[in-house]
Amino acid sequence: MALHLLSLKGFRAAGVAAGIKVSKKNDVGLLIGERPMAAAAAFTTNKVFAAPVTVGRENVADGTLRGVVVNSGNANACTGKQGERDARAMCALTAQLAGGAAKDYLPSSTGIIGHHLPMDLVTAGINTAFQALGHSEEHATSFTDAVLTTDTRRKFASATFKLGKDRVTITGICKGAGMIGPRLSVNGAKPRAVKQATMLAYLLTDAQIAAPRLKKLLQTASESSFNCVTIDDHMSTNDTAVLLASGASGAKVATDADSVSFAKALADVTQALARQIAADGEGATKIVTIKISRAASAADARLIARAIANSPLVKCAFNGNDPNWGRIVSAAGMCGATFDPSRATLKLQGTVVFRAGTPVAFDAELVSKSLAVPEVTVDLTCGGGDARAVVWTCDFSKEYVSINADYHT
Amino acid sequence: MALHLLSLKGFRAAGVAAGIKVSKKNDVGLLIGERPMAAAAAFTTNKVFAAPVTVGRENVADGTLRGVVVNSGNANACTGKQGERDARAMCALTAQLAGGAAKDYLPSSTGIIGHHLPMDLVTAGINTAFQALGHSEEHATSFTDAVLTTDTRRKFASATFKLGKDRVTITGICKGAGMIGPRLSVNGAKPRAVKQATMLAYLLTDAQIAAPRLKKLLQTASESSFNCVTIDDHMSTNDTAVLLASGASGAKVATDADSVSFAKALADVTQALARQIAADGEGATKIVTIKISRAASAADARLIARAIANSPLVKCAFNGNDPNWGRIVSAAGMCGATFDPSRATLKLQGTVVFRAGTPVAFDAELVSKSLAVPEVTVDLTCGGGDARAVVWTCDFSKEYVSINADYHT
Repeated sequence: MALHLLSLKGFRAAGVAAGIKVSKKNDVGLLIGERPMAAAAAFTTNKVFAAPVTVGRENVADGTLRGVVVNSGNANACTGKQGERDARAMCALTAQLAGGAAKDYLPSSTGIIGHHLPMDLVTAGINTAFQALGHSEEHATSFTDAVLTTDTRRKFASATFKLGKDRVTITGICKGAGMIGPRLSVNGAKPRAVKQATMLAYLLTDAQIAAPRLKKLLQTASESSFNCVTIDDHMSTNDTAVLLASGASGAKVATDADSVSFAKALADVTQALARQIAADGEGATKIVTIKISRAASAADARLIARAIANSPLVKCAFNGNDPNWGRIVSAAGMCGATFDPSRATLKLQGTVVFRAGTPVAFDAELVSKSLAVPEVTVDLTCGGGDARAVVWTCDFSKEYVSINADYHT
Repeated sequence: MALHLLSLKGFRAAGVAAGIKVSKKNDVGLLIGERPMAAAAAFTTNKVFAAPVTVGRENVADGTLRGVVVNSGNANACTGKQGERDARAMCALTAQLAGGAAKDYLPSSTGIIGHHLPMDLVTAGINTAFQALGHSEEHATSFTDAVLTTDTRRKFASATFKLGKDRVTITGICKGAGMIGPRLSVNGAKPRAVKQATMLAYLLTDAQIAAPRLKKLLQTASESSFNCVTIDDHMSTNDTAVLLASGASGAKVATDADSVSFAKALADVTQALARQIAADGEGATKIVTIKISRAASAADARLIARAIANSPLVKCAFNGNDPNWGRIVSAAGMCGATFDPSRATLKLQGTVVFRAGTPVAFDAELVSKSLAVPEVTVDLTCGGGDARAVVWTCDFSKEYVSINADYHT
C-alpha cells in the first residue's frame, strides 16, 4: 500500500486469526483512534439487518467513535437478542482494553448468516488483536485481511488535497466479493439507488469535520460509489461504511467550499474502492463499467444502468466476450425507465453496435477481442434528456456458481 | 401428448426445418384455423419490442385471427422498418396460401436479436409448412418443435370442463428456456407483476367467446401464470401469448359465471405451462416454487417472491442443495416490501429453518437431502397481513453460464 490506511497519525490497527474462519485466515480486527473522533456511518437498508448494524447505528448516533471492532467468518445476522448481546460484548471488551465506553466502538461482522458468534473465539481474538495493535503498513494489512471473506485481494485507496496551508489525507480499505448490492444510508437518509455483499468499508481522515457535515459527506460519497456497485444485486444484512475524522492534520472542513474540496477527494477514494469491489466480484474475470448518458432523468439513468448491470444474460455474455448487444438494449427497455430505442446509441469498448433502433454492421470478432480484457466499458446514450449514471459490475462465471452453490453446508 | 394441441376440431398445424437454425431443427411453423376466430393476445411490456410484436398488436386489435405464423432462430428484434416489413411479409404469404388477409395472422419470432430475418429461408419454410399442414398429433408436435430454442423438451397442457351440456376444451403449447421474465399485457392493460425469455404460448379453445371477454380472460390468466415465472428476470423483446377461440364445441362463454368456469380451466392450462417453463429453464436441475403468505399486500407478496426467485445467491444455493436460508430471508428484506423478520417463518421442503427473527435448529444434512429433488418448495409466511403470491423459478447452474456465455458469436 503506497499510502496505507494508517499513514495518518493517531490510529492503530491489528488483525489476527481467531479461528472463526475454517481457513485459519485473519478474522478479528481492531482499528483504534487515540481519542474520540467525529464519526459517520452508513448502513444497509435491508429490512433484515444484522445485530452489529443495530448496535452500530446506536453507537454512532452521537457522531462520535473511538474505533471499530470487526470479525469475519460469521455475520451475526438473524441471531435475535443473543446476537445483539454478542455485538455489544465485542464493543464492551474493546472499550475495556482500549479505553472509553462500549458505545465509542462500532462493531462489524461479515460471513455466514444465522449462526451465533463463537464468543469464546471472538473474545480471545479481540484480546490478541489488542496486544498486536500498531501503526505500520503490516498492521494495516493484518486488519484489512481480517475483514475479507471470499475476496481474492486487498482493496485500498487514498487521496490528499490542500486546504489552506494544511494537507488533508483520506484513506480507506474495504471488502466486497459476494452478496454485493449495497444501498447504504447514513442515519435513515433515503438512498437514491434502487438496490445493491456484505460490503464493509473503513475510511479515515485527518481533517477536522463536525459530525453533521461528516454525515452528509459520507451519504453523498456513498451514492456515487458504494451504491453504484453490484455483483449480484443482493443487498446484505451487514453492509457498513464508516468514516472517522481525527482532526490530526489541523485542517478544518468548516465551510461549504471546504466540503466541496473534501467531497471530491472522498469520492476519489470511495469510487476507487467501489471499482475494486466490482473487479474482485466472486468469480469475476473483468470489471464492466456501465455508462448511461442523455437519459430522461437521473432516476431513469440509474434504473437503466442497474438493469443492464444485473442481467444474468448480459453478465454471461461478458464472461464469453460476446458482443450480444441485444441483451443490453432489451435490459434497458424492461426496467420501467423512459427509453426509446429509436433514439439510442450503444457502444461496446468504443465500437458502435446499435444506433437508432437498428443494428450497425461491425466486426464481431474484433469487438469480441476488444472485450477480452480486464476492464470493459458499455456506453449507452439514450437520447431525450441529459441525465447520466455510472454503475460498476463484473461478469458472471461458472466460478461464481461454484463459490455460491456450496458455501453453507 | 395425451390430449394434444390439435385435439380440437378445425385446426391444422405444421412445423418444418427451413434452415434458420444452425442445428437444422424445425424453425418455421403454422397453426391455422378453418375460419376467422375470436382472438386475444398478450405481449411483452418491454419498451424494446420486436417487429412481430408491433405487427401482432395491430393484427389482433380487431379481436379476430385466423392463425399464427412462427419462426425460431431469429427474433426479428431491433431490426427497424425492414423488420416490420419482414413480419408483415410472413403474414401476407400465409394469407395468400391459407386464405383471408395478412391481418388475419399473428406473426411470432424467437431467437437472436438484431439480425434481419433470412426471408428466402422463411418464405420457403412457410410454403413447405403449408403443404405439410395436418391435424394429427405428429403435426402438433412438429409445430411445437418449430417454436423451441434452447428448450430441452416440449411443453403442453390441456383441460376440459362442462358448460351446460357441452364439453369445452382448452389446450396449449409454449416455449421458454432463457430470457424469461415475462410481464405480459393484453392491449396495453397494465401488468401487475414487476418483471419476468422469450416466452411464446399458443392457446386454443373450442368454446365460443366474444373477443372482449377473451381478452380479459387472457390477461387474468397471464397474471397468475406466465407473469409468475422467472428464469433470469430478463424480459424479452418478443414475449407473446395468443388465445384462439374457434367456437366449434358449440359451448358459449357468455355470462360472468361461464367466465369463472372458463378462467379456472384456462388457469390450469397456463399455470401448467408456466411450471414447465420454470422446470426447463436454461441449465436448470430443478423447479423452485416460492410461496409467500401473510404478506402486508398482494404487491408486497409479489415483490418478496420475485426478489427471492431472482437472487443469484439463492438460485446457486438451490443448485448446491444448500439450505442457505439467510439468503432467502435477506432477499425478502431488500426488495422494498413491508417485511419484519421477527414475524416471519421460513420452511424449506416443509422443514422450519427460521422463525421469529432467529435460526431454528435443523438437521442440515437431512434438509439438504430433501432439496436434492426435481421440485422444491420455499414457504415464507410473513405475518402482518393476509396476501399471498406464488412464483416459479429454477436453480442457477454452471450450465446456464455455458449456454449464455457463447450464444451469439
